[in-house]
Amino acid sequence: MDWRERKARGITRPDPTPEERERFMREALTEAQLAMHDGEVPIGAVVVRDGEVVGRGHNRRETGKNALYHAEVLAIDEACKTLGGWRLWECDLYVTLEPCPMCAGALINARVRHVYYGAKDEKAGSVESVTKLFDLPYNHRPTAEGGILEEECGALLTEFFETLRKK
Amino acid sequence: MDWRERKARGITRPDPTPEERERFMREALTEAQLAMHDGEVPIGAVVVRDGEVVGRGHNRRETGKNALYHAEVLAIDEACKTLGGWRLWECDLYVTLEPCPMCAGALINARVRHVYYGAKDEKAGSVESVTKLFDLPYNHRPTAEGGILEEECGALLTEFFETLRKK
Repeated sequence: MDWRERKARGITRPDPTPEERERFMREALTEAQLAMHDGEVPIGAVVVRDGEVVGRGHNRRETGKNALYHAEVLAIDEACKTLGGWRLWECDLYVTLEPCPMCAGALINARVRHVYYGAKDEKAGSVESVTKLFDLPYNHRPTAEGGILEEECGALLTEFFETLRKK
Repeated sequence: MDWRERKARGITRPDPTPEERERFMREALTEAQLAMHDGEVPIGAVVVRDGEVVGRGHNRRETGKNALYHAEVLAIDEACKTLGGWRLWECDLYVTLEPCPMCAGALINARVRHVYYGAKDEKAGSVESVTKLFDLPYNHRPTAEGGILEEECGALLTEFFETLRKK
């Protein structure tokens, strides 16, 4: 994002460096490990503002018995509570798997600045795979970058599904 | 939906009659009135299973200080808690305004059967306006029908924004 677009969006905080991107994706991976430990599909997410994690979440759909309990939704929910408002203007989200339509929509609604994800999701991913929701004319469009620690994020999912098949 | 599609989807419960559709959209309108009363954009939703309301919600984004608190998300959340599971297979959702991408995605994730809505949303509606999420190859596709009590649903929104402009 160049300075003109930053100014147009009223963004004053600097973008994360490549090192920070990796560091925060590792935090999302730690969340994914927690999901794995509970027997859930291992997906994790963190919301970061000003170099600080303000929301965390991991997939809890089965144990929480709730269709809404995706990693991103839970991380956004916690970030809104931490920051005391619904506008996550200067926040970035890191998630191990490409967001589904619900989560991509939640990122638009919460006005999240940048979205960084690891592995692609051919079946439900809605940033680049099934559709490209951030390219449509909604009133906010987060920028997105996939492929951050892609191999590790994908390997965790592969491991989970292989273990499942053996059972 | 004809009997072949019903059978393929494993649906045994009958579809709502036109009278039932109106009745449940009135319940969604009652929820929208509650939002209006709190100074929120008046949008309401209910989840119905077997002719019974199992989840209710109205827009609480401002008062709840949370980007996720759309009517549909709150109604789905309550329905998952009422029914004790994340699969709302045989549930229908009624909402006064065409769902946004987050809510349309949540309806896909929760495997909701039919979605009935009132007014169109040209700016964020993602069932027929900005995009048609239910036509994409996700692993579940709810059927959708708009225009149920469209005039009343739209009038409430017009009234809200007119009052806002006068302030």
